[in-house]
Order: sequence, then C-alpha cells, then structure tokens
Amino acid sequence: MTDFRFFKAGSPLTLGQLAEIAGAQIVKGKPEDGPFTDVAPLEKATSSDVAAFYDKALKFAPEDIKAGVCITTEDKASLFGGDIKVLVAKEPRNALALIIRAFYPRQKPEPFISDRAYVAPTAKIGNGVRIEFGAYIGENAEIGDYCRIEPNAVIGDGVILGSECIVGANASVSHTIAGNNVVFYPGARVGQDGFGFIMNPAGHTKIPQVGRVLIGDNVEIGANTCIDRGAMDDTEIGSGTIIDNLVQIGHNNKLGQKCVIVSQVGIAGSCVFDDLVVAAGQAGFADHLHIGMGVQIAAQSGIMSDIAPGEKVMGSPAQPVKDYLRGVATLRKLSSKKG
Amino acid sequence: MTDFRFFKAGSPLTLGQLAEIAGAQIVKGKPEDGPFTDVAPLEKATSSDVAAFYDKALKFAPEDIKAGVCITTEDKASLFGGDIKVLVAKEPRNALALIIRAFYPRQKPEPFISDRAYVAPTAKIGNGVRIEFGAYIGENAEIGDYCRIEPNAVIGDGVILGSECIVGANASVSHTIAGNNVVFYPGARVGQDGFGFIMNPAGHTKIPQVGRVLIGDNVEIGANTCIDRGAMDDTEIGSGTIIDNLVQIGHNNKLGQKCVIVSQVGIAGSCVFDDLVVAAGQAGFADHLHIGMGVQIAAQSGIMSDIAPGEKVMGSPAQPVKDYLRGVATLRKLSSKKG
Amino acid sequence: MTDFRFFKAGSPLTLGQLAEIAGAQIVKGKPEDGPFTDVAPLEKATSSDVAAFYDKALKFAPEDIKAGVCITTEDKASLFGGDIKVLVAKEPRNALALIIRAFYPRQKPEPFISDRAYVAPTAKIGNGVRIEFGAYIGENAEIGDYCRIEPNAVIGDGVILGSECIVGANASVSHTIAGNNVVFYPGARVGQDGFGFIMNPAGHTKIPQVGRVLIGDNVEIGANTCIDRGAMDDTEIGSGTIIDNLVQIGHNNKLGQKCVIVSQVGIAGSCVFDDLVVAAGQAGFADHLHIGMGVQIAAQSGIMSDIAPGEKVMGSPAQPVKDYLRGVATLRKLSSKKG
Repeated sequence: MTDFRFFKAGSPLTLGQLAEIAGAQIVKGKPEDGPFTDVAPLEKATSSDVAAFYDKALKFAPEDIKAGVCITTEDKASLFGGDIKVLVAKEPRNALALIIRAFYPRQKPEPFISDRAYVAPTAKIGNGVRIEFGAYIGENAEIGDYCRIEPNAVIGDGVILGSECIVGANASVSHTIAGNNVVFYPGARVGQDGFGFIMNPAGHTKIPQVGRVLIGDNVEIGANTCIDRGAMDDTEIGSGTIIDNLVQIGHNNKLGQKCVIVSQVGIAGSCVFDDLVVAAGQAGFADHLHIGMGVQIAAQSGIMSDIAPGEKVMGSPAQPVKDYLRGVATLRKLSSKKG
Repeated sequence: MTDFRFFKAGSPLTLGQLAEIAGAQIVKGKPEDGPFTDVAPLEKATSSDVAAFYDKALKFAPEDIKAGVCITTEDKASLFGGDIKVLVAKEPRNALALIIRAFYPRQKPEPFISDRAYVAPTAKIGNGVRIEFGAYIGENAEIGDYCRIEPNAVIGDGVILGSECIVGANASVSHTIAGNNVVFYPGARVGQDGFGFIMNPAGHTKIPQVGRVLIGDNVEIGANTCIDRGAMDDTEIGSGTIIDNLVQIGHNNKLGQKCVIVSQVGIAGSCVFDDLVVAAGQAGFADHLHIGMGVQIAAQSGIMSDIAPGEKVMGSPAQPVKDYLRGVATLRKLSSKKG
Repeated sequence: MTDFRFFKAGSPLTLGQLAEIAGAQIVKGKPEDGPFTDVAPLEKATSSDVAAFYDKALKFAPEDIKAGVCITTEDKASLFGGDIKVLVAKEPRNALALIIRAFYPRQKPEPFISDRAYVAPTAKIGNGVRIEFGAYIGENAEIGDYCRIEPNAVIGDGVILGSECIVGANASVSHTIAGNNVVFYPGARVGQDGFGFIMNPAGHTKIPQVGRVLIGDNVEIGANTCIDRGAMDDTEIGSGTIIDNLVQIGHNNKLGQKCVIVSQVGIAGSCVFDDLVVAAGQAGFADHLHIGMGVQIAAQSGIMSDIAPGEKVMGSPAQPVKDYLRGVATLRKLSSKKG
C-alpha cells in the first residue's frame, strides 16, 4: 500500500518473523508463510500486506478482506477466513506498529555536506553527518555523528546537538544543548528569546534573555513548535518527552521525562512538569505551576494551579475530570428545566 | 488607495464595466462614466476609487465621502449625493470583492529558475514555472505548469504539485500529492510525520508514518499551518477547502470539499469531515470523529463526538448552539441570585 | 552563570554602579565593592553574581546562598548574611532586569552582507546593516541602518524597515512598512494574504488582499506568529506593542500602542484595540470588535462583543472576571449538592 515515491521498501518478512517482531501468536498459518512486504489499512490491504483489526466491529463484509496477514485480538481471530493468516496479540495496534518499524527502520543518513550549505569554520561536524542545501551552521556549533540537517535549517552559534539528531527543513535552533536522537520537525523554533519584559504603561522594557534550552535524549519537537530559551535560568525538556506541532513552551519551563505534549498546548513559563505528564491538545498552563508525575490534562483545559501526581483534570479552570463532567451535566439539567 | 509599492495597478474600468463585473445595477451615473482605477474603504476613497457601503449606519458625514463610485443596497442608495456614482447590489461586500478581482487579477508568474535555487536532476518542472532564490526541489518531484515556488521554500523528494500552485516563502512540503491551484502560504508545514507513538511509561516508541498527504484542487493552506501525513493510510484535503493560519491537521484526517477551517483550529487525527464543514477559530476536535455535511462549529468549541449533518454547535464539550447559550444564561441567572 | 558559548560577557560593575542602574539602595556593602560580572538565579549564584529574591519564602537554607549581591525588598533584607551584599528595591525583579540589560546591552550588528544572500539591485540598504547567508531582500525594499537580517529570512518586494530592526531566521515579511527597532522573531509570517473569501456552497472565491501591514516603533513579533495584511485597508500594530509566539492577527486589525498579546492568542479581523490592552494566552477574538484602553483579557477567554476601557474579563463567552468566577463557584456548589 505504501507509496514508493516517498518510502523505500524494507526487507520482506515471513509470518514467523512477523510474529516474533510483534510479540504475537500465529493462530492461522505456518511460520514459513510469506514473505509479506508491507502494511496497509485492513480495507485496502492485498495479499502481500499485513493489516490489523482492533475496532469493535467490521465496517465491511469479511469476504472483502484481502490482507495477507491480519493481527487481531483472540476473540476476533475467527472472523478471518480464506487464505488470510492470523496473528493474535493483546494490543494489535501496537503489534502492527512494531511491524511497521521492522519494514521501515530509521536509517542513518548518507553522509554529505552540500557545498551550498554554510558551515562556519569553527563548527565541529561529527561522522556520517548530512547537511543539505541552504542549511546554516553557526560558529562553534557542534553537530554529533549521523545527524541530518535538512534544507534551509538554521543552527545558531554554539549550539550542541548529540548524535543522530534531525533538524527539519526551515527549522531554527539557537542557544540550545541537545542530547542524542532529538528530532526538530520542520519549522520548529527553539532557543529564541522568551517573552520577558518589565511592563510599564510608559513602554515595556525588554529583559535580555540569557538562559539556554537544554534537551535530553530521544525528544521530538513538532512542526512549527516554539521553545523559548530561559530568561536567566534554562528551559529544560527531559529525555523521552514528545511534543507535537504548534506547541508553545515559554522560558524557564522544566519538563520532565517522557511527557506527552499534544498539538497547540501552551505553557506560559517557569512551570515544572514531573515525568510522564500528558497534556492534550490546546490545553493552557499559567506560569510557575508544578504539575505532578503522571498527571493527565484533558484537551482545552486551563491550568491555573498546581496539580498533584496522578490527577486527571479537565475544564478551564481545570477540575478533576469527574467534577468537571458533573458540572456540565448539572448545568444541562438545570437549563433544560428552565427552558 | 492601494499602495503601488506592493501591487501592480490593473486596467481602468468604466461604470458600466463595474456594474457588469459586480452583477450590480447602475442607479446613479452612466455606463460610460469613469474610468475608475482602484478600490478603497469608503472613508478613504477618492474620485477614482470604488467603495462599498453595507454597515447599518454611516460613521461620518455623507458630505465627507469622496468616492467615485459607491456600491450599496437599494435602501441606502439615496444616501450618496454629489458626484458619487451609485451601484446597487444585494451583497455589496461580495460585489466589491468581484471588482477587486477585476482590478487585481491573479497573474501567471514570470517564468524563471534562479541559479541559486536547487532543482534535483530528476525533478520534472512544467512550463512557465518560477522558482526563486534558495528554493529546494527534491528528487523526482513534479512541479506543474505555472507554479510559483517562493524563496527558501523546500519541496521534498517525490512531491507532485499540479498546475498554478504557489509554495510560499520558507514553506515545506513533503510526501504530498496536490492538485491544481493549491496555495501553501509562507511557513506552511505539509507532509511531516504524524504524532504516532506506542505510549509506554518505559519510553514512547515512535511509529514510522508511511502515509501521504493528498490534496485536491483550489485548496488554500494558511501561513504556519501544519498538515501531517498519514500513519499508514493518507491524510486528505478535499477540493475547494480553505484553511487559515496556524491550524493543526493531524494524521489520517480526511476533510471533504469546500470546508472552511479558521485560524488555530486543531484536528487530532483520523476524523472524517464531510463537505462544507465550517470550523471557527481555535475549535478543537478529538480523534476518529465524523462531522456531517455543512456542520458549523463555533469558535473555541471542543468536539468530542460525531456531529450530524447541518448541526450548529458551540462550547467545550460542544452542544447545539441554542442549548449552549441557554446553559450560559441559566448559570448567569443562578449565580446572580446567589451573589 | 551565563553560558559564554552563547552570550558575550558584559563589563563588570561595582555595587555602587549596580545600585544606580537598578534604582536600588545599598543596605549592606560599600559602593566600591565588586566588581560583579553576571546575574544568576539565587540558588545557583556565585560570589561574582547578582541575584534577586522576591518570592514569599526561601526554598532552601539561607546559608546555601553564595551570591555576591542579592536584590530584595526592605522586609527581606535581613535574611542575607555572611559576605552577601544587599540592595533593596521596590520591585527586585525589575531591578534585576535593569542590571541584566546593563551586563548584556543590545549591540549593533557587525556590518556584513553575505555574498550568499540575495539583495535585489533596486533594494536600498542602510548603514551598518548585517545580512546573513541565505537571506533574500526583494526589489525596492528598504532596510534601515543597523538592521540585522538573519539566515534564510525573506523580505519581499517594497518592504520598508526602519533602523535597528531584526528579522529572525526563516522569518518572512512582505507588504509591510515598519518603524524602528522592530523585531520579527524566527519564523514570523507578516504580510501574507488575509483569509478573505466570498463564501459559497458552489465554491469559495478568493478576494485579493490589497492592503498592507503598518508597524510602529519598538514592536516585537514572536516566533511563528502570523500577521496578515489588510484586505483593502491596512493591518496596523501600534508602537511599543509586544506580541508573543504563535499568535494569529487577521486582516485589518488595528492594535494600539503598548498592547501585550500573549502566546497563541487569535484575533479574527477588523478589530480595533486601543492602547495598553493585555490579552493573555490562547484568548480568541471575533471580528469587528472594539476593545477599550487598558482592557485585560484572561487566558483562553472568548471575546464576542466590544469591551469598555479598563474592564477585566474572563471566560468564553467572556464576562467580567468577578461574574465569571462567581459562575464557576455557583456551578461547583450546585453540582456537588446534586452529586
């Protein structure tokens, strides 16, 4: 199903190899069956494709399924007849994801430095690095091994990137020290001045922002997302934290490890997030808050005070999810009476 | 009124030509009057300008109006005395828009390929294309006739653009197949990986995103808007759909035709929008929703479930507009009693 | 504390100089003490650093403080013993900001025009301008004295920038006339078409946008923020107004002087903001509104009608803050009873 205009085909895999990669059990077929060469949505898959089924019900006739292999849960395995091989896994979506990773492993870049990029003479470039047309690498920047710098990306003076980082097209990174395997998506803005002013009706006075952005390992920073550098202290993003597109992270915020920050979230400044915080889309955070470990924030919530570890909150201002939903229900009941 | 630093003046038009273009009736003046050469806001227009009036009331004395032509509705035509020519139309704003289009028609670019752009040897470039300084066109990309690629735009390997597309300054497009007359505004990010992970407290595992972005004809994608490519299936934007700035469209969303997506809307992923859906500013959508034809979503709404065709909803979580407003009114009444 | 990979150290200052700069009083130490060379957060400062203390309480033992100088309020001055010099100011945070400005003054750029930038032959470039690699300056553009154009920024035909402006990496500016000391952060999009269409189920018709963006002096435009040009009239940003990241300002909006527009705010179009309006993060504004002088809008508010000068509003739809909070409290009370 995959369009080979855009993706390189991976190595074919037998049913036995698929089962092993996915941590799944073969319930129909033999280990040597195959090879299979690609993944596809169930309704579009053909006999060389692996698909997964984990919805409540099929949205089309079982006889229209042409997949080579279907991964599903135990209770649904009997749905798939004919030639379809069947793998059973607890989480078919995750099992399929592991198979996608096997078909399409992330590859080291082909080393190359375009003579139409700019690399400052004092910059240090690691082994196996790829720097594309139009990219700019400033003075004393350090680019780790196997990094890939895409066209027209801009990396400012002194920036340090660990190994296997990717800086996407037209992204800009300044005043930043990042670990390994950090991905800056296209248009990400990292390291610019925070929004720091002495407010005054006679005219706001800019406060120079002399902190940095410190980023751990295995961090993803979405397209057109902005992370401002610290005012005096640093802005920090913990290892394993993943940030979606169009997110705003203001100066001095310190995000823990393995947080999940969904698209269009805004975090004002000087907040501390412990590990594993999940903030759903368009949630907003006031400044100087402490968000405990594992807190889950519903989409569009407005967070104005600290949140204890493990809480799930919703609404603006945010409340525990149960309270928020009870409030919504109460108001609906009251206003339908009045109506 | 128009500043010719930035815009080329169009051909002058007589009152008769204006009436025809605008589908308006001359109620004061003769077809051969003019020519008129430009448009302007009513309070700034001079004798060579066309203006429109469709507010409830004039905000200044009628004798201060110096426009050459005023387009208005029948009931207001008598307001305009002196030398002002008057056209009457049902929708003066739209009539004026048609006149603006006549004065300032969109022009084919002057063909040019900067020798300071990069065009991969395997790329196919159509007739009459303009590729500016610093632009990058990847391997096997296909750029249709009369496309305009602005400075420092980046078009990835294999991308296909139909004819008369515009890719704005510093925009990036990858893994995308687009029809004719598609406009990517400056800084738009189209085709990057979606936000797909196997979530796990031990560390989130990235799922390779092997889908594409498919875009119909006559689509507009606003400045700094992000459209992620599909995870395994494709992200799709139907013909005639217009998308404002800073919008987030996650992987696998399928938007119908002639939808209107206003600034800062976020659509999580795998939603299906039928045709003519209107989502106002900052609205947010959870994933896997079906939004029926012609649905209208108020600004800042939070959509967490499917919406039937033709519904108008508001609030977070969204309700029918009437119910939402009744809830607001009820709460105001109750809380003023308690106060 | 500052990382000199990224910042140049400023001139050392004595305690007396610091007191003068900060408008503070020496309550411990002599004017000739020092020199001090940098600023740092209180818990990280060393003997050559200046720090400030203005929280309610210390979060660590006073004996762990190693700062050379601490700026604080009168009531807290006695907390700092040992060798620490103490300055007293009414607003220690602002006093410290003035000292940061003294250590790190904004510097004129080193004049330079990269031969790998593009400067149109008809562009006028002032004295002392710096134009970096990959930047593009269009026909008839005018770049004032001491401007700094960062790598891969794109400045369109006819744009006028006053003196000492900065256009950040990968930003794009078109159809704009700006005053002095205007900062466009990386990825800012200024001057593109507004979102103007004749809406029609048969297909939306684009209205050419023939206005401009007019910007006063001392304006900041945040990273990835979008300001659309006017439809026929101009979009205007008053002097001293500061705009954070990822903000959307639609066509024809007219913002007054010294407004503060925080991250992810959206302003639809044709609004008039008087001076000193403050809009907190993620607030949204419908079109054609008049927002009075000094209005304060809470985060995530939804503004659907005009607001009188000096009002403070909150909620979506927005109400006076007191009313909004009373509504929240009322609903909580009612729904806990029902629960």
